[in-house]
Amino acid sequence: MSDELSVSPFAPQAFPPLPPVAGMHIFAAQTGVKYTGRPDFLLAEFSETARVAGVFTSSKMPSAPVDLARQNLLAGGGRIRGLGVNAGNANAFTGTAGARAAGRTAKALAKRLRADETEIFLASTGVIGETLDPAPLVAAVKLASFGFAQTSDWPGAAQAIMTTDTFAKGAARTAKIGKQKIRINAIAKGSGMIAPDMATMLAFVFTDAALPARLLRPLLKEATDKSFNAITVDSDTSTSDTCLLVATGAQKVDSPAIRRLDDPRLAQFRKALTDVMQDVAIQVVCDGEGVSKLMTVDVSGAEDDAAARRIGLAIGNSPLVKTAVAGADANWGRIVMAVGKSGERVDRDRLSIEIGGHKVARRGRAVPGYDEAPVARHMQGQRIHIGVDVGASSGKAKGRTRIWASDLTHGYISINADYRS
Amino acid sequence: MSDELSVSPFAPQAFPPLPPVAGMHIFAAQTGVKYTGRPDFLLAEFSETARVAGVFTSSKMPSAPVDLARQNLLAGGGRIRGLGVNAGNANAFTGTAGARAAGRTAKALAKRLRADETEIFLASTGVIGETLDPAPLVAAVKLASFGFAQTSDWPGAAQAIMTTDTFAKGAARTAKIGKQKIRINAIAKGSGMIAPDMATMLAFVFTDAALPARLLRPLLKEATDKSFNAITVDSDTSTSDTCLLVATGAQKVDSPAIRRLDDPRLAQFRKALTDVMQDVAIQVVCDGEGVSKLMTVDVSGAEDDAAARRIGLAIGNSPLVKTAVAGADANWGRIVMAVGKSGERVDRDRLSIEIGGHKVARRGRAVPGYDEAPVARHMQGQRIHIGVDVGASSGKAKGRTRIWASDLTHGYISINADYRS
Repeated sequence: MSDELSVSPFAPQAFPPLPPVAGMHIFAAQTGVKYTGRPDFLLAEFSETARVAGVFTSSKMPSAPVDLARQNLLAGGGRIRGLGVNAGNANAFTGTAGARAAGRTAKALAKRLRADETEIFLASTGVIGETLDPAPLVAAVKLASFGFAQTSDWPGAAQAIMTTDTFAKGAARTAKIGKQKIRINAIAKGSGMIAPDMATMLAFVFTDAALPARLLRPLLKEATDKSFNAITVDSDTSTSDTCLLVATGAQKVDSPAIRRLDDPRLAQFRKALTDVMQDVAIQVVCDGEGVSKLMTVDVSGAEDDAAARRIGLAIGNSPLVKTAVAGADANWGRIVMAVGKSGERVDRDRLSIEIGGHKVARRGRAVPGYDEAPVARHMQGQRIHIGVDVGASSGKAKGRTRIWASDLTHGYISINADYRS
Repeated sequence: MSDELSVSPFAPQAFPPLPPVAGMHIFAAQTGVKYTGRPDFLLAEFSETARVAGVFTSSKMPSAPVDLARQNLLAGGGRIRGLGVNAGNANAFTGTAGARAAGRTAKALAKRLRADETEIFLASTGVIGETLDPAPLVAAVKLASFGFAQTSDWPGAAQAIMTTDTFAKGAARTAKIGKQKIRINAIAKGSGMIAPDMATMLAFVFTDAALPARLLRPLLKEATDKSFNAITVDSDTSTSDTCLLVATGAQKVDSPAIRRLDDPRLAQFRKALTDVMQDVAIQVVCDGEGVSKLMTVDVSGAEDDAAARRIGLAIGNSPLVKTAVAGADANWGRIVMAVGKSGERVDRDRLSIEIGGHKVARRGRAVPGYDEAPVARHMQGQRIHIGVDVGASSGKAKGRTRIWASDLTHGYISINADYRS
């Protein structure tokens, strides 16, 4: 590339403090698969009580590690002992050689941890279509200092999974389950430039609670829908997207055992889990390629929450809305257009729109005496708020959601087009 | 705007010659609704034998003229006597005032043509959410010189429907139905910059054949699927998209009457209709906002033609594919990604990709000894060809299609973001 990747205007001063999570050890190694002089291989070890749930890319071209993780979730019944995540090569569209490379890495990790191969999970991010040589990863596994006595290196782990992210992403929360204080740590990576590559989202969430896999699955799905499934940078879907929720089991939860998601003892934990995942998901948007502004879109009055999310993403993905936000243009006609193209049930003649808290359209047309000045001032800011009520709910508005999106700037074009591989 | 809109590199030297179509009269007027010193109002008159079919935007926020046209197609049984198309104001998201403005314009046109109001069709393109004053349009209708004795002005009509198109778009074909020579003329507008606005696609196709509305409908649907539904600029959907096919009935077709689309006497006409609509549709892509390169994507091996089209559009709409094309980057991993995100049934391990006729991937991975040099040379050109076989057809590949798309450049961002309304 011809010039340095400029750091996101939303980059924090420092990586946030992530406290230890009992029952696991996480750290980073340098393998040199693509990058030199920085960690590029996350390794984590979990106690035998650990359980895992995962959600993966909807792509029909999943990477070899995504195939492996899906198989192991089924075969291992939600047991997890080890995790390895390499950056620089996505091991996607690599055929049987790619499956073999993943298999060899997993085997080496299983051997070091005296675990079953079905208890090992991998993720990869980076170049698509290039054969991954597993040798440097296997060597790193053999050399690594495993053992729970070791101090975890959360900043290193968050940095090791970056590709062209301009800052490392992490967040921590605590919550009580019954009387037990529980920790939740999350790290994630988002989109950046590397060729030939694309934005890939990886997220790993760790808690010390003892929760069975059959509860982790709905917990993860609920929190993902409100976090990683509610953000967008450029509408493209990676071959490698992976989000794992690991519960190490170090903190026993009150008996009788929690069996259902709506058990009141889980309420605080569910909230904290969604919260920590939203935190890192928003960090991913704030580090979107070429981002200059963060859009927050609240949708109400939809048929249900899923419909509200699809409408919100239609707004957040629209190139014309994104460029209007980038250009600080109070061009609300483009929001009307985006709602209309969502395909969801909406009532044109009851549609209302707010920008930055200022009403711009109400019941299907511009508000009488609409004054653009305060809206234009809001559009000059770095955090843009759009509120839309689509008027499709009869009686009380039921379907509602919030999504987050980046704008679309010359920076995005520069990162993705001006570069020659 | 700060600088002049630069003309598309694909703009033709001149508007193509469009011969007269018997049974109609088409011309342009100046109303000054938004533009001055140029025609901005297309007017057309049709004989009493004329019939019409239409396809419209899938937007849930359709404009008032789209509402009117849909109603009239139902109420009038496919009869058409008059057409009016204004540029500069989309008459969309304008509530009951917008419906009244459309109604007044239609009424004036019906009165001048001594036609029923259900026989009048309107389309509008331009600003969204601004009330349209019908007075200048009504005045133009009153002053206009109607009458089939008048010479039609095809270049003027094509120019009158432009917003920020950088060239007027038209095409003509002939075909035989039985022994009768039939003419087909088409004009269209595409995407350009105007604020607050969006790309809107309008297309009007006229033939002198005598064909009933019940045949025009499937004829239009078939040709639209292979033309306007197979192109994309930026994936955004206008509130105003309209495509009308008018058959004036001046040229009688052999008896017995043609009743079915697969009547062999229609074969040449169907081909010519698809051909002329593809011609103007490709002109729309070639005038896409900021376009620098035209992508042609051939998809084969899909479940059916509709699935192939959705896969092709997933490639043509992907910001990462579009920026790779803009940057002349032979980044075929992004094509893999786009096929994967289409959601259609595809076989990752049988996927094959060609760029510019050069095989890059075969059966789920890069071709052995892949040489990027000839592919990179092709990517430097102005017309980029991508071929994808998704391997989902058992036996002979059945689902196939071709789509056309523009690239995504700094020009698109400049047009849509650097501008302040």
